[in-house]
Parts: sequence; structure tokens; C-alpha cells
Amino acid sequence: MSAALVDALRQAIGAPHVLTGDGLEAYELDWRRRYHGRALAVARPASTEEVAAIVRLCAQHSASLVPQGGNTGLVGGSVPDGSSTQVVLSLRRMHRIREIDAANLTMTVDAGCVLQSVQEAAERAGLLFALSLAAEGSCTIGGNLATNAGGTQVLRYGNARELCLGLEVVTATGEIWHGLTGLRKDNTGYDLRDLFIGSEGTLGVITGATLKLHPRPLATMTALAAVGSLGQAVTLLGLAQSRLGAGLTGFELMGRFALSLVEHHFPTLPRPLGPAPWTVLLELSDGQGEAHASASIESVLEAAMDAGFVSDAVVAQSVLQSRELWHLRESIPLAQSQEGLNIKHDIALPVSRIPAFVDSTDASLLQKFPGVRLVNFGHLGDGNVHFHVRAPKGTIDGPAWIAAEGQAINSFVHDAVVAAGGSISAEHGIGQMKRAELGRLASPAHLHALRAIKAAFDPQGLMNPGKLIPRPDEG
Amino acid sequence: MSAALVDALRQAIGAPHVLTGDGLEAYELDWRRRYHGRALAVARPASTEEVAAIVRLCAQHSASLVPQGGNTGLVGGSVPDGSSTQVVLSLRRMHRIREIDAANLTMTVDAGCVLQSVQEAAERAGLLFALSLAAEGSCTIGGNLATNAGGTQVLRYGNARELCLGLEVVTATGEIWHGLTGLRKDNTGYDLRDLFIGSEGTLGVITGATLKLHPRPLATMTALAAVGSLGQAVTLLGLAQSRLGAGLTGFELMGRFALSLVEHHFPTLPRPLGPAPWTVLLELSDGQGEAHASASIESVLEAAMDAGFVSDAVVAQSVLQSRELWHLRESIPLAQSQEGLNIKHDIALPVSRIPAFVDSTDASLLQKFPGVRLVNFGHLGDGNVHFHVRAPKGTIDGPAWIAAEGQAINSFVHDAVVAAGGSISAEHGIGQMKRAELGRLASPAHLHALRAIKAAFDPQGLMNPGKLIPRPDEG
Repeated sequence: MSAALVDALRQAIGAPHVLTGDGLEAYELDWRRRYHGRALAVARPASTEEVAAIVRLCAQHSASLVPQGGNTGLVGGSVPDGSSTQVVLSLRRMHRIREIDAANLTMTVDAGCVLQSVQEAAERAGLLFALSLAAEGSCTIGGNLATNAGGTQVLRYGNARELCLGLEVVTATGEIWHGLTGLRKDNTGYDLRDLFIGSEGTLGVITGATLKLHPRPLATMTALAAVGSLGQAVTLLGLAQSRLGAGLTGFELMGRFALSLVEHHFPTLPRPLGPAPWTVLLELSDGQGEAHASASIESVLEAAMDAGFVSDAVVAQSVLQSRELWHLRESIPLAQSQEGLNIKHDIALPVSRIPAFVDSTDASLLQKFPGVRLVNFGHLGDGNVHFHVRAPKGTIDGPAWIAAEGQAINSFVHDAVVAAGGSISAEHGIGQMKRAELGRLASPAHLHALRAIKAAFDPQGLMNPGKLIPRPDEG
Repeated sequence: MSAALVDALRQAIGAPHVLTGDGLEAYELDWRRRYHGRALAVARPASTEEVAAIVRLCAQHSASLVPQGGNTGLVGGSVPDGSSTQVVLSLRRMHRIREIDAANLTMTVDAGCVLQSVQEAAERAGLLFALSLAAEGSCTIGGNLATNAGGTQVLRYGNARELCLGLEVVTATGEIWHGLTGLRKDNTGYDLRDLFIGSEGTLGVITGATLKLHPRPLATMTALAAVGSLGQAVTLLGLAQSRLGAGLTGFELMGRFALSLVEHHFPTLPRPLGPAPWTVLLELSDGQGEAHASASIESVLEAAMDAGFVSDAVVAQSVLQSRELWHLRESIPLAQSQEGLNIKHDIALPVSRIPAFVDSTDASLLQKFPGVRLVNFGHLGDGNVHFHVRAPKGTIDGPAWIAAEGQAINSFVHDAVVAAGGSISAEHGIGQMKRAELGRLASPAHLHALRAIKAAFDPQGLMNPGKLIPRPDEG
């Protein structure tokens, strides 16, 4: 049966594009090396029609499918299980920029385009595609949309969802849904686009997208500000939003311990401000030029220092210095992994509740799990904090510590998040990793709706099974 | 059976809140007086729990429900059919502002709040709720969300969809889905919020919403510009977007004939510019103050005049004058109805395709339907044109003309829209009025998905039947 399917796939898209056997780790192992599956085959179609043919063949053979882009997800959503029965459908050969419509501020692309190549194509047209995240050199736009990726510019431009106007999708029945519109308004029935966005390949395969572009700002200015508490950081955010409006394109938070790890592992990086309980990176994008941008951001920081909730601040004096400030922020995840394993939580809360949440959850964690070290940083402007827990200093066997304490710490943090009206997955999705937690914490009405939609779109259950939807025993 | 249901409803929410008999025209007749139904009863619950009780009672009695807010929709989506068996569920008694969270820039409200009262509550908190449309004094936020309303500020702030972070919904089974989060990022499963938004009451009843607020701009400046062609209007839009970025909060188009109707019916309104093929209203919202706003918008208009694509322009010199310019634009629908009946089309296209579309469709219409007069105006910045067709001059019996030509003109315009990659309902929804057209024009994959979702959420088919989803014989 499986051999027959592999033969049929080879017939459909050409033998060189159906990979089997060993050496497929790039497709079978996830980015964080937590989930190592085994695929029946990896199919690499070159067109939407080939994707549809693969979906139909798998349905005929009752084989399940795992759609995959750059395979850079953080929750195990894009790798097969260990059964050697699933087909990985890699979109990487579909990487055409189909069209740029500058007057409509849109571009239409294949799902397999690497995010950076989309950004670069927009830039060549004098425009901005405003999705930006750490994996942009390898992740694909199809994967970004399937997981509703976030990143560093959400505050101004929104998540991947807000940057997409239309989709082309191969449904579970192998039909092609042609939803590639470049429309800003369209009220002709249920919002299928937003249903597919964030569905992690469990409802269909995204094969193309029409993306929203923006004019490029004339100047971008970055600053760092030291604050004494998270409450002060939130106050600074409110001031910056009211003064800078849509010009405020970044507001990133870095805790003292997070920055100390950067200092330790990257000692050559400049540190323009001394240590403070919290450091904030602000970015202003300006339509009028560099002088205006500098003056605007300086005026906000002066007002904040006068009012006493910023203790020290520095504004970048050049593009190079702006890059360096961002580099500090971007080095936190790398410094963390050089330091060893940790337990990650990608959480979101109403911005107003973050100070009390972090203070009380930090305190409770230290009480319940003495010695743990807390790495807090993230996109404060979006209410999205990466709230990571490291083993106590001197822990030699990181994996053993995680095996012993990981689940208890996860549950503790997630319970606190839900109690505060927050989300246990702000931007990384559910995948395999958070499936059981979603089942444990979501309401019956929510789970009922998720399962009803899944059954309506994929009655055979062949689209990326085991991802996103909690199993019956999980809630 | 029906009497038993009415009794049970009276038991559940109190007899004074269940209306029956005559005199219910306000609930049974739509805004445009096209659809006059007859309800079994009008139920006016005061709480989410009462809504859930009503939904469960209707399910037990197999009676269908028509959720209703301000009953100001333009496509017959909020009125019952003529069978005297449907229950109108009016949300108007639920009009509490539940919470304003200024630091999170959110507010949580009951679905029955009138839009204007939501705007005013935001204003009292020093913030902006950026949904604005003609019916704001009577429409409700629940209705705005159920229909994904648009309006005049979509260019900057998005449709109702983009202004909503969370919902509370009573599902067709009478469960309450508690999705009232104030989160800007939440990737925990399918996007239920956006599925309910725009579903026109066919999947559940929206009972509450958490809305996104914005800082209020310090100054708002309005200008008019005369252009010789739609192509020039699109060029001006591009220039204004690149120079003003998110500051550009309005870009409204008015055709010569549309403005001539305003002049005829409202002769006392000032007309600061002479007649031109097309007139554009620009609005700039500015975080820095009036002087800066004036200088910015003047510099755009000067550049456009120097480049030769704007022939004349005027910038408002006061708030009063700004209001008057908006009044011109807002008077077009009223002037139209004073002039008599017309055939309305609420269409959207990629902005880049609008000039060719309007030119060629206008020409073909005049050829096929000699003497018709074309009223074109709308939200050019969103690609949304209200493309209306009036009877030839001298037509005495308007209704007879519409009865004779209406369907042919509708089909002709909608075919042209679909051929150009556009939408036959940009912001008004489908309701009853466009249901058959959606069935005729949507792809099988699209219709299949709509019906699958409807069946998954409302297997008994009791939630606002006859709205949005084409009947089997309609495609």
C-alpha cells in the first residue's frame, strides 16, 4: 500500500522530487531538535496543481500529510510522527514571486518563498513587507501564515494575519480554493482566509498568498531606555504610543538577567547603558527623515526622564549604532542557548496586567522552585513576553533537570497565564508541544468549536494529524 | 407549539421583554424598507445568560432565530422572514460599557451598545474607537461586528474586524464561548473570533466584544483636490500614502454627477472647488498639532499640482471647514435618495484596477442601458467604490424601471467585478439581498467551505436561516 502510494507520487510529480529512505533529517527533525519523526516519503511539488494531486493521492491511500515550509517552527508542528506512514509535503520548490502591484500595495507569492526573499522583492519595488523575525533567512511565507507568525514589528504592522489579504489553498479534498484577492474589503461570506491562517496545516495546504505592502519609512531611529520596574516600562509605552502613534514600530523589553547572559556570551557587543532592572528598546519609523525622527524620540525620552520613570537613555547616532542596539536584543535567544537548556514560555497578556503578572509569577516560581533563574524579554508593546525559566546555577545535568521539573513549571506558568486572561501561545502556535496544554486549559466550548471545524474541513483526519487539536484524552 | 415557545421565552426573560402581535415594524422591516417580515416574537434579553437561554429554548422548539442589533443593515440580514415562526433576538437591552483598560488600549462592551456610545466612552477616556459610519447613531457594535462593517477610517484603522480583539458568543447549542481577551497575539488554535465576525448571525450570537482603542490624534486636517481622471486619483493616493504613511486617515472619492446631486438637493452647502471629473477628500490625522498637519497636507498637494495630476485644491482652515468638506461627502447618499430610487453596488477592487474598471464598466453600461446615470463615490483608499446606477433622466416610474432593468444591471456590474478580481460586497455583507448573487458567482470550493462551516456550527440550521449562505438552487 505505501509502496503503491510512493509510486503514484513519483508518477504525479516526477521521481526526483519524491525522496525516501535515510538522510531526510532536514525534513524529519524539528528546528529545536525535540521531535524526530520518520516519513514514508518527502514530496516536493513545483506547482499548486501538483500539490492538489499529492493531496488527492494521499486521500485515496488514506495516508496523512505533513505540510512543511522552512521547518523552523518551535512547537514541532512541521515534522512527521515516527510511524513511517506520513508524507511530508515540502513547499520549498514553490518559490516564485508571482506579481507585485505597487499601486495596490500588494504582492502575490508562492507559499515556499523564503521570508527574506519576500522582504527583498518588496524592497526592490521601493516598498516594505513588514514581517520580520529571527528565522527570516530560512522560514517560508507559507509557514509564517500557517502559524500566524509574529516577530518584531507587530506593534505597528500586525501579525502575519494582518499582512495577508488573500490565500490560495489546496483543501483536504484536493480542491483548489482561489482566494488570492488583493482586496482590503470583502464581505462575501465567512472569513476563510483567517481560518486557514494559523491552522498549522490541519485544514489544508497554503500554496500562495497575496501580501500587504507598506511604503518604506524614510528614517528609522532606535533608542534604549533604562527603567526601574515593569510598571515604568508600561508607562513609557503609553507615552510613546500617544506621542509617536503609528511611528512607534518597536518596543522590546529586556530583563537584567537576560542582558547579563548576552554580556557574558558576547562580551564584545557594546553596552551603551549600565545594568538596570529592565531595559527597553524603542524604534521609531518616520516619514519625514532622520532629524525629525531623532527629535521625536528624544522628546519622548526627555519627557519620561523629567517625569521620573526612565533613569537613563541613549538614542542611536547612526544606522550602525541602531543595528548594534537591535543586536543586543536579538542576541538574547542565542546567549540563552549557549548557556544551556531552558524552559520556554511564549505568553501574551493584556499589557496592563504584565507588571503584576511577572512580579507575582517570578516570586512564586522562586518559592516553589528555589534557585531557578528567570529570563524575561520580548515584545512588550504587543503584550508578548518570552518568559523562560533556567535551572538553578550550578545544575550540571540540564536535561535531567528539565525532565524532573519541566512539566510542573510549565503547568504552573500556564495556569497563572490563564488566570490572568492571557494566552499560552502568543506567536509560536500549538503544534505537538502545546497540544495537551491546550486541551487541559481551553474551555469545552472552545475545544468543541476547534474539533467541529477540523471535522468539517478534514473528515478523514489526514491533514497534519496530531498537531494543534488536542486528542480526546487531552481535554 | 409556537405559543408554548412564547410562554417559555416569557418565563425565561420576563413577559415585558417578549413582544408579539402588531406594531413590531421597527424589528420586522429593514432599514431600506425592502424586506418586511413577520416574527413569532421579539425577545429582548438583558444578559448573556438570557441570550443562551433563548437560544436553547428555540433549539428545543426547533424555532429559528434572527439576531438583531440596530437593524440598520443594507442587505436585509437582520429581519425575519414572513412565516411568523422566527424569533427576533434583539440585543438592544444589552448596552453596558463593561470595562475600559487604558493601559492596554482596549474596552469591553455589550453587543447592544450603539456605536456612537462606544465612540463617546472611548473619548471620555481620552482615546479613540476608530470605527465610524453613517448609521453610527443607531447601529450597534454587535451588528457592526456581525457584518464586519467598514466606514470612513478603514484606510488607517481597518474594518470592524481589525478593531476587535475578542468576542463573547452564544453558540447555536446555547453554550457561551468566552473569547473576550484583550490580547494582540494569541495563537491557540483556529481563529474563531474572525470566523464569527462577518458571519451575520448565522453561526452564533455575538453578546460582547473587546475592542481595540487608539491614541487620539492631536489634530485632524481635511482637504479637497480636483483631478481629471481616476488614474490621477490613484496616483495622488500613492503619493499621499508614501508621504503621510499612517497619518492618511481618509481618502474619499466623489464623481462629478454625485456632487452635482448634492449641489442640487443641498444648495446651501459650500462648494469650495469648481466642478471637476473627480474630487478627492483627503484627511490627515497628526500627532504633532495643527500647524504640522497643515504643512504636511499642503506639501503633498503642492507636489501633486507641480506634477500636474491635481488641477485645484483647498485645505480646510478650521475645524468647522473640515466638517463642511466631510459634509459634502456624507451628503451624497442622502442627495441620492432624495433624487429617487437607484441600483446600488457596494464593490471592492484592487486599487490599481479601479480606473480601468470604472471607465470600461461605465462605457458598457451606457451602451447597454442607454441614458442611465452613474453615481460613483466611495472609499478609494480601500478600493471600495459605491457604484450606483440611476434611471435615465425623465424616468417617471422608478420602481417599474428597477423591476424591469435591475437584475440585468446587477448581473452586468457583478460579472464585471468578478472578472476584475473584485468583491460584490465590500462592506455591506450578503444578507438576503446578495445571497443568490453569491451563489451564482462564488466558486464551488468557496461555497463548499461556507456550507461545511455552517453545518458544523449550526447543524439544525436555526441561526438566521436564509441569510448569507446561498440556497441549494442558488449555486
